Amino acid sequence: MSKITFKEIPGSIVAPKGFLASGVFCDIKRLGTGKGSNKGPKRDLALIVSETPATIAGLFTTNQVCAAPVKVCVERMKNGVAQVVVVNSGNANACTGKQGMADAREMVSFTERTLALSAGRGLVGSTGRIGVTMPMDNIRAGILEAAMELGGTPAHADQAAEAIMTSDSRSKQIAIEFLLGGKKVRIGGICKGAGMIQPGMSATGARPAALPHGGLHATMLGYITTDAAVDAKILQAALNEAVANSFNRITVDGDMSTNDTVLVLANGLAENKKFGAKSPEFKTFQGALNHVSLELAKKIVRDGEGVHRVVTVRVNDAKTIQDADAAARAVANSALVKTSWHGGDPNWGRIIDAIGYSAAKVVEEKIDIGYSAVGGKKIFWSLKHGQPTKATFKQLCAAVAPKEFELHINLNLGKANAVMYAADLTEAYVDYNKGDVTDPTTLGG
Amino acid sequence: MSKITFKEIPGSIVAPKGFLASGVFCDIKRLGTGKGSNKGPKRDLALIVSETPATIAGLFTTNQVCAAPVKVCVERMKNGVAQVVVVNSGNANACTGKQGMADAREMVSFTERTLALSAGRGLVGSTGRIGVTMPMDNIRAGILEAAMELGGTPAHADQAAEAIMTSDSRSKQIAIEFLLGGKKVRIGGICKGAGMIQPGMSATGARPAALPHGGLHATMLGYITTDAAVDAKILQAALNEAVANSFNRITVDGDMSTNDTVLVLANGLAENKKFGAKSPEFKTFQGALNHVSLELAKKIVRDGEGVHRVVTVRVNDAKTIQDADAAARAVANSALVKTSWHGGDPNWGRIIDAIGYSAAKVVEEKIDIGYSAVGGKKIFWSLKHGQPTKATFKQLCAAVAPKEFELHINLNLGKANAVMYAADLTEAYVDYNKGDVTDPTTLGG
Repeated sequence: MSKITFKEIPGSIVAPKGFLASGVFCDIKRLGTGKGSNKGPKRDLALIVSETPATIAGLFTTNQVCAAPVKVCVERMKNGVAQVVVVNSGNANACTGKQGMADAREMVSFTERTLALSAGRGLVGSTGRIGVTMPMDNIRAGILEAAMELGGTPAHADQAAEAIMTSDSRSKQIAIEFLLGGKKVRIGGICKGAGMIQPGMSATGARPAALPHGGLHATMLGYITTDAAVDAKILQAALNEAVANSFNRITVDGDMSTNDTVLVLANGLAENKKFGAKSPEFKTFQGALNHVSLELAKKIVRDGEGVHRVVTVRVNDAKTIQDADAAARAVANSALVKTSWHGGDPNWGRIIDAIGYSAAKVVEEKIDIGYSAVGGKKIFWSLKHGQPTKATFKQLCAAVAPKEFELHINLNLGKANAVMYAADLTEAYVDYNKGDVTDPTTLGG
Repeated sequence: MSKITFKEIPGSIVAPKGFLASGVFCDIKRLGTGKGSNKGPKRDLALIVSETPATIAGLFTTNQVCAAPVKVCVERMKNGVAQVVVVNSGNANACTGKQGMADAREMVSFTERTLALSAGRGLVGSTGRIGVTMPMDNIRAGILEAAMELGGTPAHADQAAEAIMTSDSRSKQIAIEFLLGGKKVRIGGICKGAGMIQPGMSATGARPAALPHGGLHATMLGYITTDAAVDAKILQAALNEAVANSFNRITVDGDMSTNDTVLVLANGLAENKKFGAKSPEFKTFQGALNHVSLELAKKIVRDGEGVHRVVTVRVNDAKTIQDADAAARAVANSALVKTSWHGGDPNWGRIIDAIGYSAAKVVEEKIDIGYSAVGGKKIFWSLKHGQPTKATFKQLCAAVAPKEFELHINLNLGKANAVMYAADLTEAYVDYNKGDVTDPTTLGG
């Protein structure tokens, strides 16, 4: 009963009943390479549509500099239902003032009109360069074309997943199928993000006291669809829990974006009986949503800009969750730790240094540091009670050689744990993000 | 009267009357390339000696993982006087447990005995690899040789300044001369540090509430000598103020070390009349100490690992000093901002993003961002009230092209200001710090 059984299936966001998607190229960067054509160099506008009104839940960046599409979504969450999400890449519509808000509102209302939906049924997302106003003629042309292209095949999901990419090298998709109260239910998702990645999202975009400031940082966008029948309040509770343990626990570079957004649409077409927060069905649904969210979040770290190695940083036995979180984030964001991961150097000195300067309460003489394979039970310790073990340098090098491994930090002060999924820091990250000012198309958001 | 007049002179730490120095090679890394010889590849042990007992003041890392030499210095600060500092590079004597404490105590007592000083007159500093016990035979041989080599010429100061270097590409020294109550007084200093640099030091190593956690991060070592006559309490007050505006306001990579230390020795041989905290003499002394500290601190940033550009980040008109500091540190430590500086990309989107996710209270629509030459009065604005100005991309590129420039951020919410002296993030930094595990001599602390 404690283990949920589900299988992965193709189709991501269109796998659940009643969802359609499309992705087209409408030249949002206005590079002039095939305006309005879906044969262009990269799709840049996506639609995700439910055939029937869906209950919604969302989490949004807690950055105080917050993009117009995020503000529009936060406003619309109180509607409790939606039927379409329009998302563009190439322009974040952030720091664009009143014009930006007008453009975000026009994006949703133009989409609603195009699809003959009631006003208020649209949600919107944007990612890309900050501080440039939206090319609304291109956007409108893109929406019209995307509406014509809508479909329910895996190829349609692929197009949408591609259209939301910026510096991503590949699209990120998943769908699973499981039984919920005897009915076959599906959850699918797509996401994007490769740099400016350390999300810290809340339901209103306001900063809750519990979210550490250090952890408020990406543009990542995530869109999850399900045919489960779920009340909006239950859906939001499940999303809060899922994101707290997935998207809000990843870091590529420690920078939180102005646009981070995760949305879920649940259209109920699976016809399961609605469930309460204490039911076994909730547990099943939560488990499934956790899986989808965590797999999507990990795909972001693995495809992070210039990333060579992915490290799961587990801080255990801290005095408080806040301490565990602070220590995990300090290690996961330390430039020196991240470069040593890149070099395959098992430099525990840099790790204990970062733990020591973190906001966590720690005692040097109690700290253990070790390594394991991903999901591995056997931990190879390099430090016990603040002192080096007899492990040889060669043995430790072997432990940090794999492309993915787990770092175990035990503070031995309590019972609180936290995990971060972190990328290394490479020359390729620096090279990509310094760009080339003689070619502004190389300059990221 | 408000402007203090002083001139720069040669000799750094031996410029003030009654100070001697030396630096020798004793093969602390045990590479076997000339043990005990001062003709070796790089000096690694320094002595700084005052001919008469000196009043002392010090500031130490607030990292909870704190090296043995720091603990010994913190203990000895209550003596109020000292006469010698012994400093080694190549080994940080951090995370070395009881043996490390015994070794640090042996370093000071062996030095005291060698120089025939009273017990308790020695202070100690270490920098280098973490987690390796000290090669005490080499250390003792080095102390004996350094004691024989002591002298008061600029060449002796050069040797000491070289001996405390780790990844530094050049030594960092300064000395100034000025009039204090009619007497000619001198202050000299040396420092080291290139990576693991964002110091946040306090007098006891304990973390004061006012020091932001984000700002608690290097190994930097700084040693300042003066022939001024100053009471220990006054000296500590002056050092607190000087470091708060210099060493504690620099960042290379955001990592605070286990060993950060700044010490001042004042032997009184200039024979000025001792002064109180409200006297004009205090103001003069404070101004001189500020100058020495800030010039030394800036040398660290300029010589930071892989650094191409140095940026002075000025956050003005914040609601509180804590807000100004938090915003300045978020910008100064953002991987995306630092890589854009490296690329010469005037990417204000990344800057406002970092301001927005910082712990500072900000209002997007009030934020101004601009650039000036170092010390320049004319600010070229890229953003006013959260909106781009008419400045062209080409104009902004020109503003961020120099090797050093100032970034001006105005929050327009109050009257509090903060400044950070920050390095860019380059491929060379990553390359240096990833090291080469097949050649452990390339692996840094």
